[in-house]
Amino acid sequence: MSTPSQQQSQMPAVGPNFNDVRAAHWRIAPHVHRTPVMTSASLDALAGARLFFKCENLQRSGSFKMRGASNAVFSLSEQEAARGVVTHSSGNHAAALALAARRRGIRAWIVMPSDAPQIKRRAVETYGGEITLCEPTLASREATAAEVMRRTGAVLVHPYDDDRIIAGQATAALELIEEVPDLDFVLAPVSGGGLLSGTDIAAKALRPASQVIGCEPTQADDAARSLATGKLQPAGSGATMADGLRATLSLRTLSILQRSVGSIALVTENEIVAAMRLLWERLKLVVEPSGAVAAAPALFRQIHAEGKKVGIILSGGNVDLDTLPFGRER
Amino acid sequence: MSTPSQQQSQMPAVGPNFNDVRAAHWRIAPHVHRTPVMTSASLDALAGARLFFKCENLQRSGSFKMRGASNAVFSLSEQEAARGVVTHSSGNHAAALALAARRRGIRAWIVMPSDAPQIKRRAVETYGGEITLCEPTLASREATAAEVMRRTGAVLVHPYDDDRIIAGQATAALELIEEVPDLDFVLAPVSGGGLLSGTDIAAKALRPASQVIGCEPTQADDAARSLATGKLQPAGSGATMADGLRATLSLRTLSILQRSVGSIALVTENEIVAAMRLLWERLKLVVEPSGAVAAAPALFRQIHAEGKKVGIILSGGNVDLDTLPFGRER
Repeated sequence: MSTPSQQQSQMPAVGPNFNDVRAAHWRIAPHVHRTPVMTSASLDALAGARLFFKCENLQRSGSFKMRGASNAVFSLSEQEAARGVVTHSSGNHAAALALAARRRGIRAWIVMPSDAPQIKRRAVETYGGEITLCEPTLASREATAAEVMRRTGAVLVHPYDDDRIIAGQATAALELIEEVPDLDFVLAPVSGGGLLSGTDIAAKALRPASQVIGCEPTQADDAARSLATGKLQPAGSGATMADGLRATLSLRTLSILQRSVGSIALVTENEIVAAMRLLWERLKLVVEPSGAVAAAPALFRQIHAEGKKVGIILSGGNVDLDTLPFGRER
Repeated sequence: MSTPSQQQSQMPAVGPNFNDVRAAHWRIAPHVHRTPVMTSASLDALAGARLFFKCENLQRSGSFKMRGASNAVFSLSEQEAARGVVTHSSGNHAAALALAARRRGIRAWIVMPSDAPQIKRRAVETYGGEITLCEPTLASREATAAEVMRRTGAVLVHPYDDDRIIAGQATAALELIEEVPDLDFVLAPVSGGGLLSGTDIAAKALRPASQVIGCEPTQADDAARSLATGKLQPAGSGATMADGLRATLSLRTLSILQRSVGSIALVTENEIVAAMRLLWERLKLVVEPSGAVAAAPALFRQIHAEGKKVGIILSGGNVDLDTLPFGRER
């Protein structure tokens, strides 16, 4: 007979563990930047808290996705690597996988939805990725990727439903907590849940007292609904400018997040623009809408963090300067 | 009888020497950031050179001006400091002086031209500076500042015609060369010449083999004309978007620049916009037009730096997001 907690400990844990994260950090070190952590006295005053921004917009390929993609690509055996890699992605994972593959000297086939921002398509091309366009639905993305796999024999590197990816993304929070060990909160955006579940794994290992909060556009709130109901929920019908946050959780990421993520904070489109403006004006950083989502709940005091230390993962900086929500006078 | 070089060495040198720069660096250390030096593989490929960007847009108050202002304010005697400080400035020196004065706990009166960007006026107010507006001419600025001095007894801290300011601004290049010791070129924007002459003093001391190049908008080319003729030239009639580069050299800065600055590179308005776009897109940094001016000659291969190491001082990041030369679709 076993107690419930013993039963739990005997269940195979879903997702990578912290040793996998440590291994990923070591594996990817030659291929990613250790990005800076920035602060701003004026943003602290606005938030009533001490904010520590992990600048993954300054990461290679322009987003944290380089971490997971590098971990996956450099985890492949020689035999696997020789076949190349394939993925489907709205953009940042695509660019990161293409760059990681180029660094290993292998081919990368990238399935992208036809509405992906031009700047993200250009990035994939720059890094030598071979693009196949598809319809902007998850079904079309997956079917097109499967077709490319059949045709080429390439290894699928899913943007988030993959332990190697999750362990890689976790290294952003690992570095953040190494630099600011006494964080009370860690905020990360959530889309498919790779970054958020990795962040949770790192935070629980290094700073169990911290609360991890996922940040999600109100217009793409499937993670909030999935966590509330305990079942995977489809994407909403809303359109968010945070083009990197339109994916939905997988069973794997939902399971990890159910273990311990504190809560999901929802962010409106107006709040995304306002957060972007503040980050651009005060931190002097180009942060994409998806990257600004994790800052909004702290900046606008939606979490109760007054007087506390808040780590925020600024996930990326790939933004098309011709389609900003501000800029030249009309 | 003495040789020409002996005569020269016996002349009182104009401007601060490198010992003054070292002293300034020590004095201001608690008050300024040691800003990062950033690189970009894609910009290196474009330039055909290795570029090292000293990110003074990430400096306190949003520009390198915090260095000189802090050196001036913390050089004052207790008696002088008690009277407060006054200056005239189109913006970044104004904000920096207000912030440096606040850090010392003294008053700062700021004379600003009526056409200074709103964002720079707001910054001065945020830092507690007391603003007096004037006409956007050098004569009006100086007359208004003189009137404030008479009224308040405050000590003038000129934006560039001041050895304490020049020594402070020199610390940006000092840090850059400490971090990248084998630079072949150092590029800095030139307006009144404080930053450029300081850069020259630091480069000549730490890396005599490097060539210092001043970068100036074609629409505000007084430094190029002054150096070509050996006499102070008035501002041109052109209007440049680089609002921080509209001042003209002083006798002091002209004399320093005549000693050794290699040359002045002129940058068109189109090149300023193109350089800004590249810095925003590739470095993910918000850099103001004046800050982008020093990058343009390297990015667009106007200097012969192929295969060389080029240090570039990105002077500031204070830009009004509602009046960008790009952004939201019309």
